[in-house]
Amino acid sequence: MPEGLTLSQIGERDLIRRLAAYARADQWSDDAALLPEISPERWVISSDTLVDGVHFSAKTTPASAAGWRAAAANLSDLAAMGCRRCEGVTVALSAPGDTEVDWIEQAYGGMQDLLQRHGGHLLGGDCSSGEQLVLAITAVGPVHPDQLIQRGAGKPGDWLISTGAHGRSALGLQLLLGEAAWAGTLANEQRQTAIRCHQRPQPRFDAVAALHASRPTGQPWRVGGTDSSDGLRRSLELLGSACGYRPELNRSALPEPTDPFWSLCLDGGEDFELVLALAPSWAEALLRQLPGSQHLGQLGEAAGEPCWADSKNPLPEGRGFEHFN
Amino acid sequence: MPEGLTLSQIGERDLIRRLAAYARADQWSDDAALLPEISPERWVISSDTLVDGVHFSAKTTPASAAGWRAAAANLSDLAAMGCRRCEGVTVALSAPGDTEVDWIEQAYGGMQDLLQRHGGHLLGGDCSSGEQLVLAITAVGPVHPDQLIQRGAGKPGDWLISTGAHGRSALGLQLLLGEAAWAGTLANEQRQTAIRCHQRPQPRFDAVAALHASRPTGQPWRVGGTDSSDGLRRSLELLGSACGYRPELNRSALPEPTDPFWSLCLDGGEDFELVLALAPSWAEALLRQLPGSQHLGQLGEAAGEPCWADSKNPLPEGRGFEHFN
Repeated sequence: MPEGLTLSQIGERDLIRRLAAYARADQWSDDAALLPEISPERWVISSDTLVDGVHFSAKTTPASAAGWRAAAANLSDLAAMGCRRCEGVTVALSAPGDTEVDWIEQAYGGMQDLLQRHGGHLLGGDCSSGEQLVLAITAVGPVHPDQLIQRGAGKPGDWLISTGAHGRSALGLQLLLGEAAWAGTLANEQRQTAIRCHQRPQPRFDAVAALHASRPTGQPWRVGGTDSSDGLRRSLELLGSACGYRPELNRSALPEPTDPFWSLCLDGGEDFELVLALAPSWAEALLRQLPGSQHLGQLGEAAGEPCWADSKNPLPEGRGFEHFN
Repeated sequence: MPEGLTLSQIGERDLIRRLAAYARADQWSDDAALLPEISPERWVISSDTLVDGVHFSAKTTPASAAGWRAAAANLSDLAAMGCRRCEGVTVALSAPGDTEVDWIEQAYGGMQDLLQRHGGHLLGGDCSSGEQLVLAITAVGPVHPDQLIQRGAGKPGDWLISTGAHGRSALGLQLLLGEAAWAGTLANEQRQTAIRCHQRPQPRFDAVAALHASRPTGQPWRVGGTDSSDGLRRSLELLGSACGYRPELNRSALPEPTDPFWSLCLDGGEDFELVLALAPSWAEALLRQLPGSQHLGQLGEAAGEPCWADSKNPLPEGRGFEHFN
């Protein structure tokens, strides 16, 4: 049972007054927020939800990490469109009346920590009672329309690049749940990294900046890409089906399918890396520019599901998280 | 128990594929949506949530009306900022696995009906499992920054104008719940109007257009205002406290406090009218321009809670809906 002050004790108006502390003063007292003028850039908008018991739990995620992750998932979508920063977020909170006020304030604090790191603000939102804690967040960020990243922009021969490792967030979750006995040989530093990746994922605005910095002279802007929020396999499927060319993967870029890391890497999800399709010369320059980035394979000539580059056989099956099932 | 096909039977991917039918084709296949260039106008953004059992129930709200209302609440916030149309919405859906697919499709259909009426599109969103049905919607619309409506813009002597009647939505809810025996003398047409106001509220973009059309020559743009989603009393409180002047209300503009309509009118909520503070000459022109609009009173010289214009006594107490309590 809750021990601290609860939402039903303070009521909606006091909650809204408290949450104003996390917003910029000029953005809180109207029916909606006015976004700044950014022409010739344009706004990108994305919504993503964090549900208690589905995306996080008290066991694995302190309140500040829940707020951070909820916002990070949205900011990652902005980065996956080519944004280099976030302007801000709106937050629609639903929560049971017995939710501790402390929990809510720490969650908004975690969100604010992430936003301050990327220049963004809490722009507004809504509070409602509900049976389950739900943080539905919408983020907006600027992008120049000639410098978009789009899933469908990949072409045959493009190299497939990941901006970082996959499977760490899912490993972190297993460690937090005490379900990673198989990972007994991992060094303590690897464990801590995995837990940090799960609790405090970083939207890869830095990778978008590296993409700009590494573009070879004269190379037109054409970048296929998406983020890997639903797992590396799913991001490759989305990229491949949107552009109509099959992702062909190098065996050396992935764990052995018999390795327990295989399913974490392919289907673990929530690593929030960018998975990009780039002209090879640009891809090579990006790999040099961005530490931790990886060459996964290339886009083939044919349409189809992700496969091995050598045999063209489909990747061994796996199963990512799917809602409702 | 559900009889039709459920979300757990079709799974997340098929749901997303089905929901694409309600979106513009070019907006669905990326991580986020790109908003069009609108300079010198700027974007306004607002989020609002509809929770099953809190904001609606199967008894009072068919699925299509739930979708309509969820979107209408957001569009009303845009109108309350001075927008004359909506560009679109993102929708973060959480739902139990046993939710009928039909219900979801009808809800998105209702949302689409409303958006088509106001020029907007479904821009994207997110689907997640959850214990309770939650529709968290974010809307964006354009406004010229010199033609904003803001709560704090009211000045002493401004007339307070409502763009329409209050209490009808709450009456509609009582009728649907069979709790309006006291309203036995109402004509059938009044009942139908009240139910329609509850199930299919209209964001008052038309009132913003009338505001533009009625502005006296030479009158600078200065419009205080908010929408009355949380009730007429609450909108007057918000307006009064944001601009620092007390709303003074004419007795002839409101029901008798002993009338059962009093609490519906003051605290019923969800009528989604605009409550505006305007220079008297503009207010008079708006009243002529906009059928159904009402002169409620004026802003006084002093700060304070809403009061009667004649006695300066506070309005009789009441209690609107408050979350968490």
